[in-house]
Amino acid sequence: MIVVMEPEAGDAAIAAVEAKIRAEGLRVHVSRGTERTLIGAIGDERKLSPAMFETLPGVERALHILKPYKLVAREWHATSTTVRVRGNVIGGNGVQVIAGPCSVETEGQMRAAAAAVAAGGARLMRGGAFKPRTSPYAFQGAGLEGLRMLKEAASRYGLPIVSELMDMRMLDTFLHEGVDVIQIGTRNMQNFDLLKEVGRVDVPVILKRGMSATIGEWLMAAEYIAAGGNHRIVLCERGIRTFETAYRNVLDVTAIPMLKRETHLPVIVDPSHAGGKAWLVAALAGAAVAAGADGLLVEVHPNPPEAWCDADQALTPAEFAMLMHKLAAVAEAVGRTLTGVPRTTSQREDLPVA
Amino acid sequence: MIVVMEPEAGDAAIAAVEAKIRAEGLRVHVSRGTERTLIGAIGDERKLSPAMFETLPGVERALHILKPYKLVAREWHATSTTVRVRGNVIGGNGVQVIAGPCSVETEGQMRAAAAAVAAGGARLMRGGAFKPRTSPYAFQGAGLEGLRMLKEAASRYGLPIVSELMDMRMLDTFLHEGVDVIQIGTRNMQNFDLLKEVGRVDVPVILKRGMSATIGEWLMAAEYIAAGGNHRIVLCERGIRTFETAYRNVLDVTAIPMLKRETHLPVIVDPSHAGGKAWLVAALAGAAVAAGADGLLVEVHPNPPEAWCDADQALTPAEFAMLMHKLAAVAEAVGRTLTGVPRTTSQREDLPVA
Amino acid sequence: MIVVMEPEAGDAAIAAVEAKIRAEGLRVHVSRGTERTLIGAIGDERKLSPAMFETLPGVERALHILKPYKLVAREWHATSTTVRVRGNVIGGNGVQVIAGPCSVETEGQMRAAAAAVAAGGARLMRGGAFKPRTSPYAFQGAGLEGLRMLKEAASRYGLPIVSELMDMRMLDTFLHEGVDVIQIGTRNMQNFDLLKEVGRVDVPVILKRGMSATIGEWLMAAEYIAAGGNHRIVLCERGIRTFETAYRNVLDVTAIPMLKRETHLPVIVDPSHAGGKAWLVAALAGAAVAAGADGLLVEVHPNPPEAWCDADQALTPAEFAMLMHKLAAVAEAVGRTLTGVPRTTSQREDLPVA
Amino acid sequence: MIVVMEPEAGDAAIAAVEAKIRAEGLRVHVSRGTERTLIGAIGDERKLSPAMFETLPGVERALHILKPYKLVAREWHATSTTVRVRGNVIGGNGVQVIAGPCSVETEGQMRAAAAAVAAGGARLMRGGAFKPRTSPYAFQGAGLEGLRMLKEAASRYGLPIVSELMDMRMLDTFLHEGVDVIQIGTRNMQNFDLLKEVGRVDVPVILKRGMSATIGEWLMAAEYIAAGGNHRIVLCERGIRTFETAYRNVLDVTAIPMLKRETHLPVIVDPSHAGGKAWLVAALAGAAVAAGADGLLVEVHPNPPEAWCDADQALTPAEFAMLMHKLAAVAEAVGRTLTGVPRTTSQREDLPVA
Repeated sequence: MIVVMEPEAGDAAIAAVEAKIRAEGLRVHVSRGTERTLIGAIGDERKLSPAMFETLPGVERALHILKPYKLVAREWHATSTTVRVRGNVIGGNGVQVIAGPCSVETEGQMRAAAAAVAAGGARLMRGGAFKPRTSPYAFQGAGLEGLRMLKEAASRYGLPIVSELMDMRMLDTFLHEGVDVIQIGTRNMQNFDLLKEVGRVDVPVILKRGMSATIGEWLMAAEYIAAGGNHRIVLCERGIRTFETAYRNVLDVTAIPMLKRETHLPVIVDPSHAGGKAWLVAALAGAAVAAGADGLLVEVHPNPPEAWCDADQALTPAEFAMLMHKLAAVAEAVGRTLTGVPRTTSQREDLPVA
Repeated sequence: MIVVMEPEAGDAAIAAVEAKIRAEGLRVHVSRGTERTLIGAIGDERKLSPAMFETLPGVERALHILKPYKLVAREWHATSTTVRVRGNVIGGNGVQVIAGPCSVETEGQMRAAAAAVAAGGARLMRGGAFKPRTSPYAFQGAGLEGLRMLKEAASRYGLPIVSELMDMRMLDTFLHEGVDVIQIGTRNMQNFDLLKEVGRVDVPVILKRGMSATIGEWLMAAEYIAAGGNHRIVLCERGIRTFETAYRNVLDVTAIPMLKRETHLPVIVDPSHAGGKAWLVAALAGAAVAAGADGLLVEVHPNPPEAWCDADQALTPAEFAMLMHKLAAVAEAVGRTLTGVPRTTSQREDLPVA
Repeated sequence: MIVVMEPEAGDAAIAAVEAKIRAEGLRVHVSRGTERTLIGAIGDERKLSPAMFETLPGVERALHILKPYKLVAREWHATSTTVRVRGNVIGGNGVQVIAGPCSVETEGQMRAAAAAVAAGGARLMRGGAFKPRTSPYAFQGAGLEGLRMLKEAASRYGLPIVSELMDMRMLDTFLHEGVDVIQIGTRNMQNFDLLKEVGRVDVPVILKRGMSATIGEWLMAAEYIAAGGNHRIVLCERGIRTFETAYRNVLDVTAIPMLKRETHLPVIVDPSHAGGKAWLVAALAGAAVAAGADGLLVEVHPNPPEAWCDADQALTPAEFAMLMHKLAAVAEAVGRTLTGVPRTTSQREDLPVA
Repeated sequence: MIVVMEPEAGDAAIAAVEAKIRAEGLRVHVSRGTERTLIGAIGDERKLSPAMFETLPGVERALHILKPYKLVAREWHATSTTVRVRGNVIGGNGVQVIAGPCSVETEGQMRAAAAAVAAGGARLMRGGAFKPRTSPYAFQGAGLEGLRMLKEAASRYGLPIVSELMDMRMLDTFLHEGVDVIQIGTRNMQNFDLLKEVGRVDVPVILKRGMSATIGEWLMAAEYIAAGGNHRIVLCERGIRTFETAYRNVLDVTAIPMLKRETHLPVIVDPSHAGGKAWLVAALAGAAVAAGADGLLVEVHPNPPEAWCDADQALTPAEFAMLMHKLAAVAEAVGRTLTGVPRTTSQREDLPVA
């Protein structure tokens, strides 16, 4: 940490800062410049916070030099992590697509959805049984029964399942019903008690980025899970909130290479929620793969106009199959392989333009 | 709801939209313009969502005409709500200040804090026993013991207590320990399961605005609580996230008059978290009162440089007392009264209310 | 400037950074910590940019310690600047209101507007003759004829005039027609050639904040004007762009105390454009004064529903007069005086200044 | 336009709205719902603004149904526009890369840069001779001499040149010196007088998106140019301002498919300014092409660490050549062709991972 003193700060003020740093067990290094005196704290500065110093007389500001995350940082763990889900790998050279409907509705819908997911080539299936809805009057999800419908439908095709956990009291139920990957949603990215709970179990977690979470806050949320002992974490970019109203959110593709540099965890992207429209999915999904994403979370519904939630962002089974072909080509172009879809180098030319 | 058809939409597309509206039990009104045909849904459009129509062929977009909130809307409940907390009122002509430290640390700290809060004239005391910290390695709060220290210290001065609930499993403990007002923090504004739980009890709730929550989303979060039966809700503006990095957040004073128009619930402001610096509190608190806030949530600590969290935003007891005097004058200037601080002049009665 | 080296940076990399700093004429100070080596550049770091170092091998990042502005910085000019406009002062203990219509329309409209401005007690008049409109098909302003109508109407009441300059080729015309204060609008805050031009004349300039300009960028835009020799600069906060759509912009009241600390220039606020609605103006104007603004820019129109632009944000003459009374009370509450409106009580003198 | 009346609005209020619509020459359509009465204006609503109605008694709000842009709208011009620059085409099936240094520095630098641009396969060259710098003390560009150096160096390789125009008084000089494409920078996107000037000449214009401009505002800025008669417009997405501080701006890839739907104009992307770091360029450029961009604006410098501006975002000639190969593969994957680089389907496997 660097403490910047005000121009008129005297020796007593400087000594007080030095004493405070030493009291925390760090060493001190003073540099007197022409306009400011800087005081460096040498040692593990993660114990210190700028607020500890900015209240002292003569201090202009204090700033961290090191990143606050450790377990999830690439600096401390250079090798990229891969997360295994019943034989399927997220991370590494493959690009893994997780697909399925926004919400679990009926048995028939789930069976048709699972068929579409498998036919498209995806190897994991998603479906929401507990839904975080902006309105208390909207459909809140099929609940436990929904989890069972999802599991049953996915099992027919050997697909592991991904579902969102909102209420920590339901964690045991999720484990008991065989949820293979727990999703922590955007609105709960900083629900720290929930993060602590999923940090204690041995089930992979997809951690979605908060609506306006910085990269740093997001990695600290992952650090909460890792600090509990669960290192099977996948980060999911899903669009951030900005001033733009022409689409639901702005997919932040820059986050992908930045995360690849800052953390060893796999990074996937949800193009469906980001844009909020089915017709945007192909362009956004392609962009995500070209930017280096390790996977995608895509909404597919057997009959989108009848979907009980987010109807306008779900792909039809046919659109999903076409998307997978496009993504296979983009993945190949950047030296990777889309899991589940064979390379089709020669057939590619006749595909529609993005 | 208005459904806007594409220019080339034919009669079949229009008929399909009409059928869908009627199937939901609403009536239809068609208006054929020169460039677009519009289809209006007449009746309670809250059942409808734009997504239900935007997936149909020939539909350009669909938009709500009515606001989605009902119980908290002023349209349906014209009289302003006042929330009573053991004889103290939030809402109405008074301006109520809730003060205390960011986190409960020790018995001595709490006693000194309570003395400062009472001496300044505030009638309610805040203190965090369970803290939502960005880092898993930071102090997470004194927990149950902290709640007891807060209660004990506040009781000496007859101050009801306000504390943040993060984990729904702790709700019974909060009630048992006599927490008078439950605070739902920024990061949990859309933790819908938590909102449902506090909606079931008869204890006032302060609902802080999410870091980047719109007014509409915030009111829908309040609607979750009200829908459960608990109408004792106070909204708290605490700064929003923007591009500006010169201060922690941007206090959104415009939200105050807008909420006053949209909802009957009282609105308070947290100037301490908004700016993140003690020296900004007086300006922001004054602005909030001038803009029509019904109260404030202010951080006061007996010895800010030694505070265990957010040290740089807490006022000293002396600064707090001075702030209360300033706020009394501003409140008077806009035709209101700061609870706990005597009016300094009698000539103000003839001024128009803000 | 501090250059943070990567953990694995070797002596050669460190030496290269040192050489580059010395080549720019600054001295070097190296601090070897446990996790990082830091290299400080001692001297006037304003010549350096982070990019100069971040391209060198082994450099993690480089950061400025000093603020980039100098002429407008309070650090270098501790006394608050007051800007005089034909005997009227902006800055100091008074609060100055500048009022008038969004755009100059007709002679009759301007005469009625000038009468309303003067009757309310304001001492300066605003009016747009050249309008920056989002649409090329919207009314673009009355042009030179508009400037003359504004001047003529205002002169009847001895009011100096404020008008927006968009095109640098019109600067001579503005001077010739006797525009007393040149306004640089939001969309031109970083039109650097325009800033250079108004930096060369001896006429006060109101510099509005860009829609999403940081405090730092805004002060650097003011520095452009000051660097040309014109130090008669007034900063005007007018709302920033955020994710919120319930109102046009978010008035950033935190900017007021922050600017008061960072710069010696006066700061005024435009509550009309910020909120975009006449009914929001009183609350926002009050908040601005309570937060320490030195003045306001308020839209007043003799007949708002017939205004040619921004009809929904203009106050009627009666509303304006009422606003002035309210603001006089708020100004008094924070120890200041609203220019043009008599104090209503004498007991306020003993109150602390905001 | 739809005017939504307040619940309690009476017949007189409704009649006044109807009269105002008719006075503007449009027809009226009234729809009385259960909770609100809606009044539709039938005809060319572009003459109307919500503000015209929102000031009338009984009106809750008014909203546009049609988009305000016309000349640049795909609705009125279904065929995609291609912009020709001395035989090179922007738009259509090809993907066009424009490359060169941030600023023109010296003859030697420009010759080396032109060689690198041509060697990489790009067909147009960029270079800034007039630079919009945040600080008045930073290098402001080589000016007229810079334009000449750019032209001379580019001519050796037959590359048309692209350069930014900031000051409308320099337009004739740009034409005289043979600037082939005029760039309007981010900070001038709403410098309407400048837009009007470039709308009067017959030279292609690259219009960069403002830092926080919405899609609608950006298209209206393009409409300004088109309204002047110049339809040779290329839109350039360059990152938007958000709350995220981990990178300079957030590249908004969603804008690409959205613009493709809303306008017939070509859309290119500047990955260099968006991320602000050379190491981010490959990922962002790939994402842009995968999302459907018609071209890129990429910074290349013979020796980035010595660049006079934005040193950390320029690619070396070798990095640029590698980027072009990667982009050729991505373009091919989405059914397009990167202009200037031969398809290399079989060699692709050995390329580095994104």
